[in-house]
Amino acid sequence: MAAASTNSFLVGNNTQIPKSTSQSLLHLTKPNTLTLAGKTKPVSVRCVSSTPQVQDGATRSTPTTGSQDRVFNFAAGPATLPENVLLKAQADLYNWRGSGMSVMEMSHRGKEFLSIIQKAESDLRQLLEIPSEYSVLFLQGGATTQFAALPLNLCKPDDTVDFVVTGSWGDKAVKEAKKYCKTNVVWSGKADKYTKVPSFNELEQSVDAKYMHICANETIHGVEFKDYPVPKNGFLVADMSSNFCSKPVDVSKFGVIYGGAQKNVGPSGVTIVIIRKDLIGNAQEITPVMLDYKIHDENASLYNTPPCFGIYMCGLVFEDLLEQGGLKEVERKNQRKADLLYNAIEESKGFFRCPVEKSVRSLMNVPFTLEKSELEGEFIKEAAKEKMVQLKGHRSVGGMRASIYNAMPLAGVEKLVAFMKDFQAKHA
Amino acid sequence: MAAASTNSFLVGNNTQIPKSTSQSLLHLTKPNTLTLAGKTKPVSVRCVSSTPQVQDGATRSTPTTGSQDRVFNFAAGPATLPENVLLKAQADLYNWRGSGMSVMEMSHRGKEFLSIIQKAESDLRQLLEIPSEYSVLFLQGGATTQFAALPLNLCKPDDTVDFVVTGSWGDKAVKEAKKYCKTNVVWSGKADKYTKVPSFNELEQSVDAKYMHICANETIHGVEFKDYPVPKNGFLVADMSSNFCSKPVDVSKFGVIYGGAQKNVGPSGVTIVIIRKDLIGNAQEITPVMLDYKIHDENASLYNTPPCFGIYMCGLVFEDLLEQGGLKEVERKNQRKADLLYNAIEESKGFFRCPVEKSVRSLMNVPFTLEKSELEGEFIKEAAKEKMVQLKGHRSVGGMRASIYNAMPLAGVEKLVAFMKDFQAKHA
Repeated sequence: MAAASTNSFLVGNNTQIPKSTSQSLLHLTKPNTLTLAGKTKPVSVRCVSSTPQVQDGATRSTPTTGSQDRVFNFAAGPATLPENVLLKAQADLYNWRGSGMSVMEMSHRGKEFLSIIQKAESDLRQLLEIPSEYSVLFLQGGATTQFAALPLNLCKPDDTVDFVVTGSWGDKAVKEAKKYCKTNVVWSGKADKYTKVPSFNELEQSVDAKYMHICANETIHGVEFKDYPVPKNGFLVADMSSNFCSKPVDVSKFGVIYGGAQKNVGPSGVTIVIIRKDLIGNAQEITPVMLDYKIHDENASLYNTPPCFGIYMCGLVFEDLLEQGGLKEVERKNQRKADLLYNAIEESKGFFRCPVEKSVRSLMNVPFTLEKSELEGEFIKEAAKEKMVQLKGHRSVGGMRASIYNAMPLAGVEKLVAFMKDFQAKHA
Repeated sequence: MAAASTNSFLVGNNTQIPKSTSQSLLHLTKPNTLTLAGKTKPVSVRCVSSTPQVQDGATRSTPTTGSQDRVFNFAAGPATLPENVLLKAQADLYNWRGSGMSVMEMSHRGKEFLSIIQKAESDLRQLLEIPSEYSVLFLQGGATTQFAALPLNLCKPDDTVDFVVTGSWGDKAVKEAKKYCKTNVVWSGKADKYTKVPSFNELEQSVDAKYMHICANETIHGVEFKDYPVPKNGFLVADMSSNFCSKPVDVSKFGVIYGGAQKNVGPSGVTIVIIRKDLIGNAQEITPVMLDYKIHDENASLYNTPPCFGIYMCGLVFEDLLEQGGLKEVERKNQRKADLLYNAIEESKGFFRCPVEKSVRSLMNVPFTLEKSELEGEFIKEAAKEKMVQLKGHRSVGGMRASIYNAMPLAGVEKLVAFMKDFQAKHA
């Protein structure tokens, strides 16, 4: 078992240790040899710590303790997280860096948590090269809360906002905004079942639009902006929930970038808003205090108790993305995974099909169907048996969807592609 | 070291193991003996699993792995969590019950997370004996978001709401409600620096109030309702953020009970709303969709992605509270801890002082001052050296505050009281 390999949990003598033990962790500060003398046959266990102090940045080993029991999770969000991030969080869960408490127990105004949230912001600023004239806010409520907060903060009721609607999320943003401003859908991909992004020069923008809203990556439909329209008036606002930190972005092109954390950068329960500072401070009177950007900006996201543990997890992910080499490197990996999967679909000669126009296919969410749609249930079921889960498409579109966010390893996509080929061979 | 005791982490031969090792965990399914053969002197380590499967409900040992490095955390929230809950969460963090993924990675619509949220709700219903005509919602945004959501859902703009204000949080609730309804402060303790609860028959209630709002326990001022006023008109709404699940409550006396989780039942980022079903469905048109109780009720708190990991943690706490014997037993423990601390203050003959009227002193948050106020800084500093942290009073009131929520062990209060006596002896 686990002979050789880079595992941090090596068991000698080919002796199985109990499954639930192998799933969990042995934390030691240095590689050591433990001899386990239970009632059964003794085993020898070598442990490598997963605590950050011990890991050498340069030769960082990927802790894969228990990997053999992990699944490849293609869920659209909450989604798979980097293994080394989970292992760090696990190691520190009960007692964070000798503070005597869990991150979940820390006062949000104590020095420990302040160091966590400040480092998270600073690392995110470095990752996305966020200019100093932008604020970073860590909020709650998901992108759906922002659908209201944006017009409440950026418009008066008579102002007009332009929307380019390339999928369900963009459509939801319009519906919510109608409560607080005038909305103008300058383009909608609905008639084409949300498979396209328009050419920008054909957009009939309002002359007096306060801003233009797009959803940079439509999680359900798998449509991603590869470039961005330039508003004639006002500024650009983008929901980046499902491609946040998946590639470099020129933040200066946007007035606001926002997104839920639960796809690429953390667990659910954290919403990140990056906003140009001059846009803050004009909320409508009816704005709930918790939706007012000014309140959160003035209080450095600590007006009330923030989702501390979630922010901590995002911070660990940002650290990991920087260690990987930053977003250019992350994009390269994402491109490689996406190419592999889309190529497999193309090479199937129609057995698998992706409805999305090639030039705007998402690197994050890959929807596909089977020519023989009656086989889709079997495909999903058989894949799950092979430990590839959550491949069912969104209930509104059917078919399959593989979400291959930052933390999906190349090995997961390779396994899926191999499975697709086998499945086709069996059913062609 | 740790000779005898109920510790699950026993080290033989009086040999110290490295500090960061003892802080972390050794998970094994059965008590076993490990022999650690490092570069230094070998030590013998006995481990008791903290995994739920192994724990025997009847003779449940309190896992105290690494307890010696834990502090007593008197923070007002986020606050200390039960050790056994943290250990369970740690054991399952990387791979929840063999699902192959962390709870943080699970689709909120998958069977695994559905089982988690449904059990959390069911256990909470059992704990508080919540009648079937009430809905339980797991939301985001803290009590502060509810300050807006309540009038938005329960009032039209011309309706009046009565407020009994016994501290800062009740006051904040009024200020936010003014945006969405007419507010009538029927009583305020502000002139007495929030140290009292009024007698209910002196309250001059509005004849047409839509509801009456109270904050059942004022976290900052340490004032707690021991009984509840009966509205002449409408129903009672209570912010129970800081005494939620600290004692039995007759839910049927209320229209709405709500609270942030981060005091007694979980990490920050989860807000629980218990609402009589007939009050749902009349939100004002300007209500953001995420603040509309109807949306969350119809979708069983899954309209958008909920704060999954936080809800999971709450579920573990609910399980623990049930295992302790339910809220009657929890209240008994809380009463004992509070008595110990308040008695110590009284017995100090004025050296320590609690400003709150005796009959309404909170079982959760105990504010106190020193007669010689110039010693307060030293008190807080010296206590921290003894591993009793976060004793500084809220910046708005000064002095000290000991928050002794459900998860604060009796030993923590005993240690604080002993320290107070020593401190007095030194400085009397």
